[in-house]
Amino acid sequence: MGYICKTCGNKFSILEKRFRCDCGSPLDLEIDTFFSKKDLQKRGESIWRYREAYGLPADLLPVSLGEGRSPLLKRSIKGDDVLVKLDFLQPSGSFKDRGASVSISLANYIGVDRAVEDSSGNAGAAVSAYSAAAGIACTVFVPDYTPDGKLTQIRLYNANVVKVPGKRQDAHHAAMAAARTSFYASHIWSPVFVQGLASSAFEIWEQLGGRVPNMVIVPVGSGGYLEGLYQGFTLLKNAGYTRSIPQIIGVQALNCAPIHEAFQRGMDSFADVESSQTIAEGISVQQPARSKSVLECIRASKGFTIGVSEQEILEAVRTLFTMGIFAEPTSASVLAGWFKLEPKQRKDAVLLLTGSGLKQTKKLAELFPE
Amino acid sequence: MGYICKTCGNKFSILEKRFRCDCGSPLDLEIDTFFSKKDLQKRGESIWRYREAYGLPADLLPVSLGEGRSPLLKRSIKGDDVLVKLDFLQPSGSFKDRGASVSISLANYIGVDRAVEDSSGNAGAAVSAYSAAAGIACTVFVPDYTPDGKLTQIRLYNANVVKVPGKRQDAHHAAMAAARTSFYASHIWSPVFVQGLASSAFEIWEQLGGRVPNMVIVPVGSGGYLEGLYQGFTLLKNAGYTRSIPQIIGVQALNCAPIHEAFQRGMDSFADVESSQTIAEGISVQQPARSKSVLECIRASKGFTIGVSEQEILEAVRTLFTMGIFAEPTSASVLAGWFKLEPKQRKDAVLLLTGSGLKQTKKLAELFPE
Repeated sequence: MGYICKTCGNKFSILEKRFRCDCGSPLDLEIDTFFSKKDLQKRGESIWRYREAYGLPADLLPVSLGEGRSPLLKRSIKGDDVLVKLDFLQPSGSFKDRGASVSISLANYIGVDRAVEDSSGNAGAAVSAYSAAAGIACTVFVPDYTPDGKLTQIRLYNANVVKVPGKRQDAHHAAMAAARTSFYASHIWSPVFVQGLASSAFEIWEQLGGRVPNMVIVPVGSGGYLEGLYQGFTLLKNAGYTRSIPQIIGVQALNCAPIHEAFQRGMDSFADVESSQTIAEGISVQQPARSKSVLECIRASKGFTIGVSEQEILEAVRTLFTMGIFAEPTSASVLAGWFKLEPKQRKDAVLLLTGSGLKQTKKLAELFPE
Repeated sequence: MGYICKTCGNKFSILEKRFRCDCGSPLDLEIDTFFSKKDLQKRGESIWRYREAYGLPADLLPVSLGEGRSPLLKRSIKGDDVLVKLDFLQPSGSFKDRGASVSISLANYIGVDRAVEDSSGNAGAAVSAYSAAAGIACTVFVPDYTPDGKLTQIRLYNANVVKVPGKRQDAHHAAMAAARTSFYASHIWSPVFVQGLASSAFEIWEQLGGRVPNMVIVPVGSGGYLEGLYQGFTLLKNAGYTRSIPQIIGVQALNCAPIHEAFQRGMDSFADVESSQTIAEGISVQQPARSKSVLECIRASKGFTIGVSEQEILEAVRTLFTMGIFAEPTSASVLAGWFKLEPKQRKDAVLLLTGSGLKQTKKLAELFPE
């Protein structure tokens, strides 16, 4: 149990308020406990039913808002069966609550009273919500061009919103600077946050009656969810609960596809790509910090990447709405990706719908005028 | 199994496409089956795990989007323990999905291909979502003064939105007229819809490990949720799964409190009250159609009503946000009501938070300016 740096081999206690190695590299978690199937019979329904899988102290009290246990629906789309996980049905409206619950629980355990984050999107909302639940003061750094409407949820959770002039990266640097005296509850840097996302793999395995699907398809921006899923399925395999792990397929919008490009070209880390605006704004990340690890996970699972156009995303959003599923465009990218697979290839796939359409009602009204 | 009219005693098959008795009264459901505790062990997590409780044919295929199983959180607020059910974490963003899933499942079973509803709020979204999921064409009648932004979700679910000139009541009459040739999936008139809401009582009982709380506090507009909860707890008692039922407390905004007034004055049906705008718009119903039954349920449970001011609702919304819970003002009215009870009186209460704050982000930004 603890942090390990894969670059220089350094190890640290998770009781330290750190988010990276002294060498500057991201940290990984060492997990040496796992839940037993018997444990699960008597546990509640939140992600904390899998608590041994997060590498946390046994006496930690979870900061929980009931996250996890999102529905997994079997649907037939254009004649093919597919499994759709409504993972946006979470307390703050996105899958990020899985990670925020675990990382803020640790922060709370080690006595943090101030947390910082940089995100004007789903991660900012999630970290603000769990900080509020824990009674931790939260500051969220955002680029100064962020529209106020996008910040309402974060602000109402009582977070302090700081607008930073410049680019997205400048907000990140401001958060890093503030992290010297606060806890950096980063959805990108924190390995504990990523570990919380692994809970989704455990749920899929349970919801399918103790088996894993042939493939899972997930939107990729920074790639944290993809890593978390790989980690989760790998832990299930290591525990002997499944013999194989699913192919993990990462979907990016072609308008901003540094990982998709890197995968196509056989590169080890993100490709230097031109990017333009995409309606899948949750995955519009031009220089993903953990791209090396993300690409490793894709390859290790025998997965691949798919790039989707704006038009394909729009059609997929529309398809979801007509199924009664109100997801945001970023989520719909996975359905757009699934459509591009050969019917034979796309059997027994789980699509992860990551964010709620209710966060973007106004934008959706514009995208689909009357 | 079937519909019964408590006014004239008439009985009808649930296979009939009707929403009221020939005498004009609302119908009730006769339930003669119930789930066994053993059944529950092998069932999925949606409201359909309790399917015998809805009085539907055994071979009915549910139209489900994974509704139900909302988190029940134990919290301490101002020194007192309270249970908070995040019942807005549903596919379309409100508790109404429980009712819509059951009523649209029946509509689908009896071969309905067109459904109508009148609501620009949570019920309209829920019925549109489940109609989309079932492939049923849905028309929603709304007053012509309804802002377009409020209709986006309904419209995107592919429902046909018809704006009716005049008052709210005129939209209702238009729906009733259309119901002559379509199925009226009314959240107010359909006893099957109300029966779906009973699922929440079963969940609370299960989530508390097989017991019922001392009281449940629920917002009351038309009062369908209150009736459904009473019905659910009563079925649990009749089955011998609990010895008593909770006190059921209905909360109304003082700005529109026809049932609260009626209860205070010992009346049998809603009081004729002045009403003014309230931020709890989901419970702003001046002439609730089922008020007689709602008042009966409150009295039979030894419950009562509470009226709350706009200021009290605002404070309660703020309190929820600072706990990391993003509910809409209507939901927060129950916390406002709980605050008004004596500390002794409010022990072991479940607060039902019925609608998501994400549906009203813009309005919330205005209510709580920076």
